Amino acid sequence: MIIDCHGHYTTAPKALEDWRKRQIAGIQDAALMPAASDLKISDDELRESIENNQLRLMKERGSDLTIFSPRASFMAHHIGDFAVSSTWAAICNELCFRVSQLFPAHFIPAAMLPQSPGVAPATCIPELVKCVEQYGNVGINLNPDPSGGHWNSPPLSDRSWYPLYEKMVEYDIPAMVHVSTSCNDCFHTTGAHYLNADTTAFMQCLTSDLFKDFPNLRFIIPHGGGAVPYHWGRFRGLAQELKKPLLADHLLNNIFFDTCVYHQPGIDLLTKVIPLKNILFASEMIGAVRGIDPETGHHYDDTKRYIEASTIVVGDARHQIYEANARRVFPRLDAALKRKGL
Amino acid sequence: MIIDCHGHYTTAPKALEDWRKRQIAGIQDAALMPAASDLKISDDELRESIENNQLRLMKERGSDLTIFSPRASFMAHHIGDFAVSSTWAAICNELCFRVSQLFPAHFIPAAMLPQSPGVAPATCIPELVKCVEQYGNVGINLNPDPSGGHWNSPPLSDRSWYPLYEKMVEYDIPAMVHVSTSCNDCFHTTGAHYLNADTTAFMQCLTSDLFKDFPNLRFIIPHGGGAVPYHWGRFRGLAQELKKPLLADHLLNNIFFDTCVYHQPGIDLLTKVIPLKNILFASEMIGAVRGIDPETGHHYDDTKRYIEASTIVVGDARHQIYEANARRVFPRLDAALKRKGL
Repeated sequence: MIIDCHGHYTTAPKALEDWRKRQIAGIQDAALMPAASDLKISDDELRESIENNQLRLMKERGSDLTIFSPRASFMAHHIGDFAVSSTWAAICNELCFRVSQLFPAHFIPAAMLPQSPGVAPATCIPELVKCVEQYGNVGINLNPDPSGGHWNSPPLSDRSWYPLYEKMVEYDIPAMVHVSTSCNDCFHTTGAHYLNADTTAFMQCLTSDLFKDFPNLRFIIPHGGGAVPYHWGRFRGLAQELKKPLLADHLLNNIFFDTCVYHQPGIDLLTKVIPLKNILFASEMIGAVRGIDPETGHHYDDTKRYIEASTIVVGDARHQIYEANARRVFPRLDAALKRKGL
Repeated sequence: MIIDCHGHYTTAPKALEDWRKRQIAGIQDAALMPAASDLKISDDELRESIENNQLRLMKERGSDLTIFSPRASFMAHHIGDFAVSSTWAAICNELCFRVSQLFPAHFIPAAMLPQSPGVAPATCIPELVKCVEQYGNVGINLNPDPSGGHWNSPPLSDRSWYPLYEKMVEYDIPAMVHVSTSCNDCFHTTGAHYLNADTTAFMQCLTSDLFKDFPNLRFIIPHGGGAVPYHWGRFRGLAQELKKPLLADHLLNNIFFDTCVYHQPGIDLLTKVIPLKNILFASEMIGAVRGIDPETGHHYDDTKRYIEASTIVVGDARHQIYEANARRVFPRLDAALKRKGL
């Protein structure tokens, strides 16, 4: 089985975007604020948006199951207050849940949280509980910068995050650490902010003792870990200067990297430098980079091709990256599969 | 000849740091503000600080000449106002100039600028002129985020930077795009902020048409280009989505990467992915990562070893990375060497 641990619902029917625009207008003028129930998307519309897009590509490329969460750039936690984020998260999570019900063999949901700048992360717990208990979510996306590029929240090691971590540990679910749209002109969203956030989150973990407090907490750093594997020597050296244990002991029981790196040499470096047990297959397909690479004739985000062409990821290692690591990092996914006899 | 294009005066006599502390105290209480002339460092002290440190390692490792600029983390443009930065930059640049006079065969200076948050970059031109005309500086360090991690200045493509670029083009000097200390708790200075800034600066250039306006402007992106080479496919794909030319045409006549990547697989990726004409040898020695790598028994920042062990950088390519590219990107360095018959 090939599990793609990083898929977003980037192809939701346009009604979703329209509703969001009305919600944003409603922040300024309460008379314009739509009710959640104003959004009407039929099962047929959902089916069509998936069958023609993600599911078509999954079949073409040969992946089986996607851990599916709301569109990352649309989370935009910086817009409005907690109530705005709360309604928006509930709507987006419900859609991903419905997709998972329509295509249970191919999609399993992960939740976005109703984060809001300056609001305690603990406020996200009720949405998380609902998503896990009622919707069968197997993970969450955690935004380390709900400001959207101003980075004025405390680092991930801050105790304000701890109530959320406690709930994650209780449910045994990991978080993908994933920012949303940048509203800072300095940072291009997918070309700078995403990668910077990955590097930043890793370093926040490195400088802290977060995983001493939470030995079972697990983070997936997406986009191949930002700059981290490329600078693995730098990070090993920095840990050494900071008198931290070896990274293998300090971080690699808790931190995992996905394979959203869109060229062969990048995947080769990732799989050479990072232990294979810490790498989870992912494509973030129909995401940041949707084109065809003229150098290969294939889609940049068809990351399975890079794994197939790898001389490092062979034999059992392929099974690890495609399936076994995801089952280990997402135990609720594993349990859901086992309930189906898979 | 082996030219290291990225060295900072990280080992300056402690009197410099003491003076800076007094200057910072003077921001709150003008009575405490020291005069520039209060700082007294003798030539012998300068010699000692270099001979026992950078020069010793250069000889041990086998590099010949370092392009030498003030300590990056000490620039701290976010501290005080333009007057504070101005005095501080003048002091730091003078010290690097004096080092270059004491060791003319081994050090040639590059200048820091007296940037200050919210102050027009054009205000830095007089210091730049002095450093080029009187001190023989062959390049500058340009801080894309003088706030120190708050990123509230306009991107490098903004017209407010243009007067500085015009002066750079007039003098035919490149800039290394290098941030300073992070005063944002989210960003570790050398583990996150530096690398993020590299990626951010590259993407600011990618999304803009800066090099159409300045075909002869040249930037060196340090630390191996941050996350860029590792995600080269992503950046090629993003340029494609943005309808920009191929990166080779759009950016690679103007952007160069140094070799401050502290492990073999990173250097191997860099040299595989980025054209060799765009790579300049550098170590940033006695910088962010000063330890010995237990996996190799050698200093992490002894980057020459990675080049020597490369199966890609062989024959003439080695000469390109060690010397020829630096002479081309820093024409004033080339001219200075030629004046000495080198």
